[in-house]
Amino acid sequence: MIKKIGILTSGGDAPGMNAAIRGVTRYAMYKGLTVEGILRGYDGLIHGDSTALTRRSVGGIIHRGGTLLKTARSEEFRTEEGRQKAYEWLQKNHIDALVVIGGDGSMKGAEKLSALGIPTITIPGTIDNDMPGTEYTLGYDTAVNTVLEAVNRIRDTASSHDRVAIVEVMGRHAGFIALESGMACGAEIVLVPEKKVTLKEVADHLVESHKQWKMSSIVIVAEGAVSGCDVLTYMKQHHPEMNPSLTVLGYLQRGGAPSARDAKMAGLFAQKAVDYLLSGGKDAVIGSIHDKIVATPYTEVDKYKFTIDENEYDLVHALGT
Amino acid sequence: MIKKIGILTSGGDAPGMNAAIRGVTRYAMYKGLTVEGILRGYDGLIHGDSTALTRRSVGGIIHRGGTLLKTARSEEFRTEEGRQKAYEWLQKNHIDALVVIGGDGSMKGAEKLSALGIPTITIPGTIDNDMPGTEYTLGYDTAVNTVLEAVNRIRDTASSHDRVAIVEVMGRHAGFIALESGMACGAEIVLVPEKKVTLKEVADHLVESHKQWKMSSIVIVAEGAVSGCDVLTYMKQHHPEMNPSLTVLGYLQRGGAPSARDAKMAGLFAQKAVDYLLSGGKDAVIGSIHDKIVATPYTEVDKYKFTIDENEYDLVHALGT
Amino acid sequence: MIKKIGILTSGGDAPGMNAAIRGVTRYAMYKGLTVEGILRGYDGLIHGDSTALTRRSVGGIIHRGGTLLKTARSEEFRTEEGRQKAYEWLQKNHIDALVVIGGDGSMKGAEKLSALGIPTITIPGTIDNDMPGTEYTLGYDTAVNTVLEAVNRIRDTASSHDRVAIVEVMGRHAGFIALESGMACGAEIVLVPEKKVTLKEVADHLVESHKQWKMSSIVIVAEGAVSGCDVLTYMKQHHPEMNPSLTVLGYLQRGGAPSARDAKMAGLFAQKAVDYLLSGGKDAVIGSIHDKIVATPYTEVDKYKFTIDENEYDLVHALGT
Amino acid sequence: MIKKIGILTSGGDAPGMNAAIRGVTRYAMYKGLTVEGILRGYDGLIHGDSTALTRRSVGGIIHRGGTLLKTARSEEFRTEEGRQKAYEWLQKNHIDALVVIGGDGSMKGAEKLSALGIPTITIPGTIDNDMPGTEYTLGYDTAVNTVLEAVNRIRDTASSHDRVAIVEVMGRHAGFIALESGMACGAEIVLVPEKKVTLKEVADHLVESHKQWKMSSIVIVAEGAVSGCDVLTYMKQHHPEMNPSLTVLGYLQRGGAPSARDAKMAGLFAQKAVDYLLSGGKDAVIGSIHDKIVATPYTEVDKYKFTIDENEYDLVHALGT
Repeated sequence: MIKKIGILTSGGDAPGMNAAIRGVTRYAMYKGLTVEGILRGYDGLIHGDSTALTRRSVGGIIHRGGTLLKTARSEEFRTEEGRQKAYEWLQKNHIDALVVIGGDGSMKGAEKLSALGIPTITIPGTIDNDMPGTEYTLGYDTAVNTVLEAVNRIRDTASSHDRVAIVEVMGRHAGFIALESGMACGAEIVLVPEKKVTLKEVADHLVESHKQWKMSSIVIVAEGAVSGCDVLTYMKQHHPEMNPSLTVLGYLQRGGAPSARDAKMAGLFAQKAVDYLLSGGKDAVIGSIHDKIVATPYTEVDKYKFTIDENEYDLVHALGT
Repeated sequence: MIKKIGILTSGGDAPGMNAAIRGVTRYAMYKGLTVEGILRGYDGLIHGDSTALTRRSVGGIIHRGGTLLKTARSEEFRTEEGRQKAYEWLQKNHIDALVVIGGDGSMKGAEKLSALGIPTITIPGTIDNDMPGTEYTLGYDTAVNTVLEAVNRIRDTASSHDRVAIVEVMGRHAGFIALESGMACGAEIVLVPEKKVTLKEVADHLVESHKQWKMSSIVIVAEGAVSGCDVLTYMKQHHPEMNPSLTVLGYLQRGGAPSARDAKMAGLFAQKAVDYLLSGGKDAVIGSIHDKIVATPYTEVDKYKFTIDENEYDLVHALGT
Repeated sequence: MIKKIGILTSGGDAPGMNAAIRGVTRYAMYKGLTVEGILRGYDGLIHGDSTALTRRSVGGIIHRGGTLLKTARSEEFRTEEGRQKAYEWLQKNHIDALVVIGGDGSMKGAEKLSALGIPTITIPGTIDNDMPGTEYTLGYDTAVNTVLEAVNRIRDTASSHDRVAIVEVMGRHAGFIALESGMACGAEIVLVPEKKVTLKEVADHLVESHKQWKMSSIVIVAEGAVSGCDVLTYMKQHHPEMNPSLTVLGYLQRGGAPSARDAKMAGLFAQKAVDYLLSGGKDAVIGSIHDKIVATPYTEVDKYKFTIDENEYDLVHALGT
Repeated sequence: MIKKIGILTSGGDAPGMNAAIRGVTRYAMYKGLTVEGILRGYDGLIHGDSTALTRRSVGGIIHRGGTLLKTARSEEFRTEEGRQKAYEWLQKNHIDALVVIGGDGSMKGAEKLSALGIPTITIPGTIDNDMPGTEYTLGYDTAVNTVLEAVNRIRDTASSHDRVAIVEVMGRHAGFIALESGMACGAEIVLVPEKKVTLKEVADHLVESHKQWKMSSIVIVAEGAVSGCDVLTYMKQHHPEMNPSLTVLGYLQRGGAPSARDAKMAGLFAQKAVDYLLSGGKDAVIGSIHDKIVATPYTEVDKYKFTIDENEYDLVHALGT
């Protein structure tokens, strides 16, 4: 029977992680459990760096970006010895189950710990929205809104100068942030890793739309599709009259107070994580699939892979022209 | 065959209405239609106040709150003569179908126009999220985030003064805004029209949570549940030591640039409205049900009524204590 | 010689108080002093509720609204016995000087403590900007920007509905917030305590401006000038066609991350407070006068009273019509 | 006697330009003048691209970033022929004086036009705050607050990962933005063009502060001091353990709704520009010096050059360590 759970955040931080830490801690205590917070991700497990969490210690954090428990990428945890140390520390501290908040890599780490015998649950937390087992990851909605606000500013300048503004956003392997923010800001073009488009095609599309009546345009580029810098160079060379400019949003997108949606989903994911453990479940990732909160065992997670919506992709370009 | 559509906004304005006007106009033109924008809702129909919309005239509005076409509540349209005049104007101007963006009352108006023979489609636009036929209305996500930002400010003051902050939000008939913002901000209590709770119970809950360790609390009150003023008066009388304060957010909640979600949904609703008309559909409300964009005929809309999530309601109080 | 200083926040909280706490603590330590933080204002002095502050304990707070040290209005401190207790606690704890961050009332409290023999310095912190000895108080710039953002949202709704939006802002005795936010948002009228204007004159001005071409207007009302509710009632009765609405911004205006100006001024005020004490100064209020940071002894403070700018008041109405 | 004035915006856009256009137009009309808005800066003068401005046409723009009149850098205006054409167009259109809103380069252009015989006035509008004749330029306060908000987000990530976050901000020739935002966000170090500091010194300072207790730091770099990229490369090479990251804020800093201060100053500058012309003044730049709104003839402007505050520069490092 589970009496004490551990919780850690791992990989890149994401808005909503603190809300999830609060949610897991308070809901677990509401159900009679105690909670140990592990610092700096898997590194903290290996080096025994932790602190007891209480209702109070997670008060006043729901709206804060980043993660109270800090996070890191642990080299040592990639080794068998590292994981063994982590496992032993969990045993020694009578931690019956571990909740990991993080992205794809963090989930793989959790799966390896599970293999050693400690039940784990992963709560998806990454702004990139690119995890199997869920259509939604904590931080994604905030990141998209941060991009939107930034583009709303950049548009002021672009339209004052009749210029093409190229904006590079995060998304190494997936175009979720680029597509949703592009749709929301009314971009003329969105470049995503999932779709191959040549720079000439980009330029032709802009030329065409400027022929009609447009004088300024927004191009959203996911870092995984092509470098924003390459787009800028190409446009400068072939269409200097369009007065192209580039902004790389970078780390800006990872911080900030969580949006309402991220803070709410953090609570629901936390509840599911604790309930699932208490009902005997383990070694699974929490997710939202077709608007339902579900738990999917790591072993089945590859059945639930989601990708960008084709219709939305086409719609951006239909509306943006 | 449909060649020209009219579009108007009606009832209270909501963020995302401009994005929907842009979406309908551009997508309709993309499909070869022309678009007439009617001013000031049904009043504009009656008095023939309109303007042709082009790709260009809806440029640079996607991120603006309010509605370019303006909106009003029309007394005259409530009469048969008023509606007849509206119908005749539409006929005279060769408008083959009308897209109405608005809330429940606006949809009822559209239904009555449909009865006269003009095909209509309603796109749900109201911050209250309280329409049959959809789980999501344009403006809702923005309003909830606006409330969240406001409460994040109010919390600074509440926790500096160890006080109970009562915040009254919109929601005459439904607790959606109150519940989602309450969940997102980590409120101790949420009062919604759907749940009867006495002021004594509210006070007892706060006393209990302050006994444990809390020194400041947030109480979110939907205007339709009880007046924020009554909660304040009760608390001042019975628990002056809690130093209660009240903020009524009011019209603040209705404006602002649409959130990413509202701007995106506006595009998807717009696309569905036009596609549905072009495929021969009519007299229906567009909606999002179980994460799918659907069109539901007015006659069947009462089958799809949604209400606040019971689990979320309980969870707020489990986490907030 | 001064070796240890105490610091407290008193009265209503204001954005920038945390930045000032950080500034005083770090600058004092940089100058070789130690710092004791007193909790809950003068109450904390009386009851000996305090904590040592370090460079680290004031890290990560510069951008947070409210006050880490909490604040309260102390009844006990209004009595001679209360102040005597406070004085004795300071003596017993070897605190050589006290820095008080707060408004006018807090400064008067500091002056009374000074009379007992403990050197004090007041740093002006109140959103109302209504203190003698300074043209600028911490929190003012943030509050004005918060009002501006709120009015920018409310304007969306007002212009969509062709309505007069009445917005009540803080300012019991002074119209600073109302005037500066009114000027910044392009209000048609600003009502401030310093100027007597009848409701009929307000209505006449609006009628006149709507006759020309305006269809929506913003009226900013300082709470100390007239109740927003009275303006609403009058307009509803005499000009229902203007569709008047009221929003009372309330406590919203007191919270939030400090603006750049407030955070910067907090640092400069803090530096001056410590330097002044170290140079033998005492019993004075720090202030910004004609863009210079100065210290004015309490006894001379009434020579430096500032009021709203007459030219700005007239300009709002010249530009707003 | 002046009856008709022209107005244009030139150079990089800045928040507050629209507020200044509104201010000049409305105040000029209030004084009985008519106003012609010239599009795309000096290019519009040369090609006769203009539109009459009315009270109404400048309604609803006070809070918008960018410039309604658009702006451009004109190659043709750098030639004598270009300026002659511009002058002739002004003559032909009976424009008695020209108000230019822009930065240093735009002021030089205005001076050259003045030499041809047309009275001009420059209103300082550039986010960089680097113009002679004024301590404040429109857009500066908004830009600093935009940087502050961005850094507040970046800090979440930096402190979650115990990392050094390098943030590059605008400022080719002056460190105003870097210094004020650095002071406001509590940066550990600020690099400005006015001060030579080696990368080794930067690194040593960070090492020192991390030795004490700090685990994350913010470094603000003005683009004119050193490339953010160089700082990143150096830190990665010599202190990889500090986990350095870089964000280049870029065009983001130029857009957005003006802050309260920028919108207010725009009105005051506009009033002064019109009043100065009406009182017979000409060929001058409006400015704020020691908190007073003044007009300084172009010929004397170099007497009023302002630079970053040495005390503030030192204070950042005293408080940041």
